[in-house]
Amino acid sequence: MENVSFIGTGVMGASIVKHLLKAGHPVTVYTRTKEKAEDLLQEGAQWASSVAEAVTGADLIFSMVGMPADVEEIYFGENGILSAGTPGQIVIDMTTSSPALAIKIDKEAAAKGMFSLDAPVSGGDVGAKNGTLSVMCGGEGDVFSRVEPVFALFGGQVIIQGPAGAGQHTKMSNQLAIATNMIGVCEALVYAEKAGLNPERVLESITPGAAGSWSLSNLGPRMLADNFEPGFYTKHFMKDLKIALDEAKMMDLKLPGLELAIHLYEDLIAKGYGDKGTQVLFKHYK
Amino acid sequence: MENVSFIGTGVMGASIVKHLLKAGHPVTVYTRTKEKAEDLLQEGAQWASSVAEAVTGADLIFSMVGMPADVEEIYFGENGILSAGTPGQIVIDMTTSSPALAIKIDKEAAAKGMFSLDAPVSGGDVGAKNGTLSVMCGGEGDVFSRVEPVFALFGGQVIIQGPAGAGQHTKMSNQLAIATNMIGVCEALVYAEKAGLNPERVLESITPGAAGSWSLSNLGPRMLADNFEPGFYTKHFMKDLKIALDEAKMMDLKLPGLELAIHLYEDLIAKGYGDKGTQVLFKHYK
Repeated sequence: MENVSFIGTGVMGASIVKHLLKAGHPVTVYTRTKEKAEDLLQEGAQWASSVAEAVTGADLIFSMVGMPADVEEIYFGENGILSAGTPGQIVIDMTTSSPALAIKIDKEAAAKGMFSLDAPVSGGDVGAKNGTLSVMCGGEGDVFSRVEPVFALFGGQVIIQGPAGAGQHTKMSNQLAIATNMIGVCEALVYAEKAGLNPERVLESITPGAAGSWSLSNLGPRMLADNFEPGFYTKHFMKDLKIALDEAKMMDLKLPGLELAIHLYEDLIAKGYGDKGTQVLFKHYK
Repeated sequence: MENVSFIGTGVMGASIVKHLLKAGHPVTVYTRTKEKAEDLLQEGAQWASSVAEAVTGADLIFSMVGMPADVEEIYFGENGILSAGTPGQIVIDMTTSSPALAIKIDKEAAAKGMFSLDAPVSGGDVGAKNGTLSVMCGGEGDVFSRVEPVFALFGGQVIIQGPAGAGQHTKMSNQLAIATNMIGVCEALVYAEKAGLNPERVLESITPGAAGSWSLSNLGPRMLADNFEPGFYTKHFMKDLKIALDEAKMMDLKLPGLELAIHLYEDLIAKGYGDKGTQVLFKHYK
């Protein structure tokens, strides 16, 4: 059994750690606010009082934190993962973060004799709980092979997409599909309402066919029920979209759907909806 | 068994007529080009040499033609459906057309003692063949109840959405969800390609999750295979989007996703892609 450390036990991380514990892995956890890990400690996880302590003695070091700046800090900060790490250890960043940063981590890890994977996920809190996440992985094939059985403990789809950064790029592709579709879901439903239809009944007609999507089925009903509680935070989504926009610019790629989504979500964040779920886009049309 | 007439036996209409014949309905067909109906005549349909002839003696008169102008002509033209019709007959327009026109047909039909339903469908040629179309219906409840068993012969979802025009409005809602999502599907895939990923493998990662949609699963692979043959014609899709835009304007509703889709598709039609399938949007990004 690999010794696993897990840095960042938010909603997603905590669910993943539970799968690792259940499978019998020794897991050490570190997170900024210890209370958030209490649950896991009771289930058998060990507490580390710092990133460096979490790194010491681990075979696999997972991280899943908030923003790219947080990733920078835990990897490159004083007493960060890369300063505390030792040759042979594998670091796996599951934060949705920038492909460029994933490549930078990979290079620095290699310089220390360590290995790295970028492995953002999709599937949300429900996927994490049920162990059905889609794990989008970038890195070397043999490193991936070694970690794959561990990914399989919480992943439904576990796919190596290419070299370092490819996992993050795949996640960006995922977010791009979601972002513009969300606009279409909102416009379909607000049109239905304005036309005097019963939008719930319209959903019954349109979800089984070519208009169907995960967002239409799952977030459409929440929009109509005025339920804007976060499944996925708008502020985090915006972070992802801005990474995608930066990357697209570097590739000289113009993405008008993404630009429109950013424009609409920025307006909503300015109005104080950053802590709402992404379905809050519906409010733009109201 | 109701006597059925069917005006317009294109790809969709022909498949629907086959279901009606199979169930034992006497079906009379009329379509502009007789050759297109040969197949149906061999399967037992009767030929009418004009719209007026098709109308005579029918209980239910279905129409499924191309553009709103064609609907205008077959309903309101000289020797059209409404001039040839007699009290008690039910007209059912399945063309995707304007809600305003559906309401106009309904009024004129009522003035003649006839009844009307608007009943556009989604599900495409495959849905028509398999009898799994989503039928989105507008009209009076008791008229709908009478036609419902006939709809059920080719429909998977058959739902009355409201009074005259509500079927067309529901179809517009359907097209709105598709239009903007298509932009997202293209942007996700072109990003994946430009980032140097294998886009087919990216699809494996992203289709099962929150980015998933009918278009991503069904049209994404065609885009990547350079297959732009029409499942659904871009020129017909554009017709629908312009109806939706007109209706939205009348409702004082601003739909930037729809506007963007129209802008992009207009450009493609100007480049000669109107006879390609809607997945041709991918070419905008190439």
